Amino acid sequence: MSNTELLPVLESEAEPCCPPLDERPLTAEEAERTARMFKALGDPVRLRLFSAVASHRNGEACVCDISDVGVSQPTVSHHLKKLKEAGLLSSERRGTWVYYRVEPAVLAAMGAILTKAASV
Amino acid sequence: MSNTELLPVLESEAEPCCPPLDERPLTAEEAERTARMFKALGDPVRLRLFSAVASHRNGEACVCDISDVGVSQPTVSHHLKKLKEAGLLSSERRGTWVYYRVEPAVLAAMGAILTKAASV
Repeated sequence: MSNTELLPVLESEAEPCCPPLDERPLTAEEAERTARMFKALGDPVRLRLFSAVASHRNGEACVCDISDVGVSQPTVSHHLKKLKEAGLLSSERRGTWVYYRVEPAVLAAMGAILTKAASV
Repeated sequence: MSNTELLPVLESEAEPCCPPLDERPLTAEEAERTARMFKALGDPVRLRLFSAVASHRNGEACVCDISDVGVSQPTVSHHLKKLKEAGLLSSERRGTWVYYRVEPAVLAAMGAILTKAASV
């Protein structure tokens, strides 16, 4: 079963929803959508899990590969769900295991929001 | 008075503390430091204030320029303090007003953490 969560920062893969942070003040709606993704990466355990998936072979990992962050399996599952809800990971069941993938287009959009702002 | 907060993502302006998210799983310490900055941008009001400073002339704004986000002045001050504590803004008092500046090197480091991960 593929993950069909909406990816909040992107209207489509080619077009980010929100301007670089230094272009103009964000509207309330833009800020809501963008903050949701930053917040998802704003927890150390979620960030470690995310990094474990992103650095795994092909940017994809089974939940069995990435549980070595010193928290219980239910806590791992909770954080993976939050990352999915924020549109940062997708998941797919294959046989016994659920595999998680990073969403490169979403990360690129978030990176562009920051790095364009950094070239002030 | 200049802000002398430590900038947690950077060891120095040239050298980010933490690898791109797809290079290897972050250590607990790296995740703590990086998550702190993402968390600071994970609130819609903080993100709007940050964007208001970043998009202001020369990436610098007086608190009097950036209070138009529909929250009270004490709330604005609270959020600006959080952004400073995360190392994303610095501040300087000049006469009556406090001026806030973005920290471009820190943003560049955060952007690099994301955009290198996005090129998987």
